[in-house]
Amino acid sequence: MNASSMNVDLDQERLRKHLGPELYRHSLGVAETALELAERYGADKRRAYLAGLVHDYAKNLSAERLLALASHFGLPIDRITRAEPRLLHAPVGAALLPLEMKITDTAVLNAIACHTTGSSRMSLLARIVYLADVIEPSRDYPGVERLRQEAFQDFTGALLAAVENTIGSVLARGLLLHPRSVSFRNQLLLEKRMIGG
Amino acid sequence: MNASSMNVDLDQERLRKHLGPELYRHSLGVAETALELAERYGADKRRAYLAGLVHDYAKNLSAERLLALASHFGLPIDRITRAEPRLLHAPVGAALLPLEMKITDTAVLNAIACHTTGSSRMSLLARIVYLADVIEPSRDYPGVERLRQEAFQDFTGALLAAVENTIGSVLARGLLLHPRSVSFRNQLLLEKRMIGG
Repeated sequence: MNASSMNVDLDQERLRKHLGPELYRHSLGVAETALELAERYGADKRRAYLAGLVHDYAKNLSAERLLALASHFGLPIDRITRAEPRLLHAPVGAALLPLEMKITDTAVLNAIACHTTGSSRMSLLARIVYLADVIEPSRDYPGVERLRQEAFQDFTGALLAAVENTIGSVLARGLLLHPRSVSFRNQLLLEKRMIGG
Repeated sequence: MNASSMNVDLDQERLRKHLGPELYRHSLGVAETALELAERYGADKRRAYLAGLVHDYAKNLSAERLLALASHFGLPIDRITRAEPRLLHAPVGAALLPLEMKITDTAVLNAIACHTTGSSRMSLLARIVYLADVIEPSRDYPGVERLRQEAFQDFTGALLAAVENTIGSVLARGLLLHPRSVSFRNQLLLEKRMIGG
């Protein structure tokens, strides 16, 4: 299937204007990659494509706006997200999308809400969006090509490598590390041990 | 003050036999280093020395024994410590010491209980034991000499470097990472930002 032919119920022109050209290109890449992963691992392809398209809906908002919106929607703000509000773009996006883009599919919204930190309790769809986000074609960092291959061969292993990349990068940059990223990583490690054992 | 002259109310010969020669040597090193750090940062020197001496009291116990004792004492066993029971040697040691070595000082016991994972709520004494454990004279790994110097110049910075070393090592060895280690690291980072800002 040609990814770009995937018909989703969404005003893509409005989305393109909202995101700006660079983020829209990234979002198309995530959508197409999520669609391919959904096909490979038996998830809902339409949901994967749609979630990829809109996962960064709140990415361009300022730290102040993200905190204000999180507060407005009653989203949990912990000491990590208070100090690093950019992490809130995922749950804030999931809260804005029903109102601004008429997306009400909770499976899609849940996947978007945890796409940045990850969590120990993610659906297959959420994991697909998480992985697609870091391997989509415009991503360029050491090891990405290997991760792209692994994504279609060893899903859990690729997710583990992806979240460990993120943790390493957060530590190296002196940013706060969200406990949910560590829970996600531990959960994946336990799953791999169960498979291996 | 000569550290080895520190008089603590403890049967050191019994402790030496219990720990074995290598672990006893490490424990003496932690005690002496903790004493020096206590002197530098104004903590109770006797408590620091004593906590250093006995911090690894349960280190030689098997995984099965650690799990059984943790259960016996009603200590929390989470999915991380269930999969990596060696992490339990810290709280199990703190539970055994009142019974087997007549140590009942809760400040000392609390410091011992969290010396492996760390936590976001550690006393100065607990932080001293944590840091002394990784810089005592018999430790030998890349960067330890620099960390030893930093320990007496920038306590929070040295603790941050120490816990980040641990996190990196846990990730590299494919072990489960305890969320308390991450909470400890985030807490230290927030404190450094407050100092810096």
